Amino acid sequence: MQTQFPKRGFELREYVDRVKKVQKILLDKGLEAMVISSEADVRYFTGFMTQFWQSPTRPWFIVILPQGSPIAVIPSIGVPLMESCYVDKIHSWSSPQKDDDGIGLLLKVLQENFCYKRAKIGLLMGRETSFRAPLNDIIRLIAPEANLDIFDITADVQHIRMIKSTAEIQKLKFVCGLVSEIFKDLPSWQLKDIPLSELFRMFKINALKVGVDDVSYLVGAAGSDGYFDIIAPPTDRKLREGDVFMLDTGCVWDGYFSDFDRNFALGHASDEAFEAHEKLIDATNAALESIKPGFTRSKDLFRKMNEILYPNKNLSGLNLDEVGRFGHGLGIQLTEPPSHTDWDETVILPGMVLTIEPSITYGKKNYLMVAEENIVVNEKGFEYLSQPHGRELKIIS
Amino acid sequence: MQTQFPKRGFELREYVDRVKKVQKILLDKGLEAMVISSEADVRYFTGFMTQFWQSPTRPWFIVILPQGSPIAVIPSIGVPLMESCYVDKIHSWSSPQKDDDGIGLLLKVLQENFCYKRAKIGLLMGRETSFRAPLNDIIRLIAPEANLDIFDITADVQHIRMIKSTAEIQKLKFVCGLVSEIFKDLPSWQLKDIPLSELFRMFKINALKVGVDDVSYLVGAAGSDGYFDIIAPPTDRKLREGDVFMLDTGCVWDGYFSDFDRNFALGHASDEAFEAHEKLIDATNAALESIKPGFTRSKDLFRKMNEILYPNKNLSGLNLDEVGRFGHGLGIQLTEPPSHTDWDETVILPGMVLTIEPSITYGKKNYLMVAEENIVVNEKGFEYLSQPHGRELKIIS
Repeated sequence: MQTQFPKRGFELREYVDRVKKVQKILLDKGLEAMVISSEADVRYFTGFMTQFWQSPTRPWFIVILPQGSPIAVIPSIGVPLMESCYVDKIHSWSSPQKDDDGIGLLLKVLQENFCYKRAKIGLLMGRETSFRAPLNDIIRLIAPEANLDIFDITADVQHIRMIKSTAEIQKLKFVCGLVSEIFKDLPSWQLKDIPLSELFRMFKINALKVGVDDVSYLVGAAGSDGYFDIIAPPTDRKLREGDVFMLDTGCVWDGYFSDFDRNFALGHASDEAFEAHEKLIDATNAALESIKPGFTRSKDLFRKMNEILYPNKNLSGLNLDEVGRFGHGLGIQLTEPPSHTDWDETVILPGMVLTIEPSITYGKKNYLMVAEENIVVNEKGFEYLSQPHGRELKIIS
Repeated sequence: MQTQFPKRGFELREYVDRVKKVQKILLDKGLEAMVISSEADVRYFTGFMTQFWQSPTRPWFIVILPQGSPIAVIPSIGVPLMESCYVDKIHSWSSPQKDDDGIGLLLKVLQENFCYKRAKIGLLMGRETSFRAPLNDIIRLIAPEANLDIFDITADVQHIRMIKSTAEIQKLKFVCGLVSEIFKDLPSWQLKDIPLSELFRMFKINALKVGVDDVSYLVGAAGSDGYFDIIAPPTDRKLREGDVFMLDTGCVWDGYFSDFDRNFALGHASDEAFEAHEKLIDATNAALESIKPGFTRSKDLFRKMNEILYPNKNLSGLNLDEVGRFGHGLGIQLTEPPSHTDWDETVILPGMVLTIEPSITYGKKNYLMVAEENIVVNEKGFEYLSQPHGRELKIIS
């Protein structure tokens, strides 16, 4: 396959826009800074992209003031890379250190910027966030001696990140397109009597060959006419006639994730399995067709799907015990807000990239089946990023 | 290559042993429980292994009491997998939830276990740890109303994890052996005029083909006679005659990491580059030969290397600005304690798996060069897990 790859990275303008949106929030709320510490947030606002985050040793901090470019407070090992990012000043220390591994420097930088006066800072404190620093350091940050009043600005920052730019959507569309190609090709692979773990290996190799940077996430399951677990690593059990199996993957290109799955059956499947798959696609279509950008809420998407999946149950009998939601946001993380649940009030807006991910149980053994597509919301409704799957469960002969 | 793969997973005994070690600490310190929340710790003590941690949406908690098996407090999506792990009770909730996404259930489980009395709990609060939950939930956990006195048991738990079992060492040896094969093969690849990003892709595909589960970490750099940055993703710059390049990889098999790099030059390299590489290997050998298990400390390894790398400087002029240490522990994370620095007092003991990772700058442009090997400490000294590189910088013609 000859693939036309988009350009990597972003124009500087992209980061300036992102930071300006935070600065507007800081000004509106009378906050004197935002401090972030997680891989996704640091990357989103500065462009600092590295797999080095897998080492838990060193903390990394970015300070965004109401004016100017972000300020980095980072280990010196990261200075060369950070110099190419959207930051103004870089304060660094030789990390790891025995006693004070960066938190003291962060507090000093903040206090100098606030002229040693008490100041209000915004932090990400809510659902789906975490402050990536040891608890002892967090306790120093929120202690009275730090002279900081902390405010939770999770909802505001998540809202900024939820609306993707044209350049972000291009990357997401590209990676979803690559993954669609792999899934399209999969039925031609020699699958019978190979272990599920070997199928995973084949999938990863093929994904790299078509052009993804990393198969960061690959889970799945297989079993005679169905599966139960959707987050486990693969077993060495061999695929056999009559198996229903599912692969769910988050592939990454230039730091942006796909997140969708496909179900297949080897040779044949039960009527119940076919029906389950049809219901999942019907639920997906119902949710997608209902999208009125600016009006529909995440919870409405949930309800549309739930009506089709569980028509005889009222909303209190959600049957959502296993998965907890019917899809979510997608971007520089495998899962981002919103969550399609009965409580998420997020208004669906143009620029949002979402997964639609209904799940259902079927058959006497209560097998679980999950189907997932990726879409981008536009002014009129939506556009698929994944090549959508038809109603019929795919049989591999 | 025909590879003999070790058995995946562990015997139950492995987890029982690990948990018993924590329980001894709890009893010694008079603590009523330990609560953990991070991927690595949850996996270490229960065997719960999934890439699903990449979704930041849901928190996961494990409670270890002074007696019995661990207790899980987890989202219901994880119940099927957790049922196969070393836990006794599983308390679950349908996650994500709007207002209280698990922290309330965790506090309830703790309070019931403590019969609603004030209790002392151990947490990981120190260097290299983080409590994976939103700040708002952490604040609830440490608030007076939670009726918990918290104690930092980082050092104790890190000490347990530092000493690898025979089964763990087998996995680490296996993955390091696979990666050694790939690096050995690399000079035969067609490298000239391919972009560094393409070399990364080739490396990943080859690594999967020889049998690693994931190339979780791959960084590197290339430049005319040297490189500066050792954590950046690859650029599309084409490799050319006279380049010195480095690949540093954390490949994973059954959840255990390799972590070593290799330097190569295309066609030729300067005398300074050759000398730098020789010094790095000399420093590595000096450190390794100095190991007296039970006596040598991590800081002694650092000093041995530093004497050779920077013989004219006293210890205050460490030249460690860039990297911060000369190696670290290795296991279920890419980097684990200890850190070979001038302050780390950790006594090197049999069962420790370590990287030896000196770095040096050279030439007029101050290029950086890093060399890394993986070893396991035994009763007599050490054994290589990586196939050690010779003194001479490898030239690819």
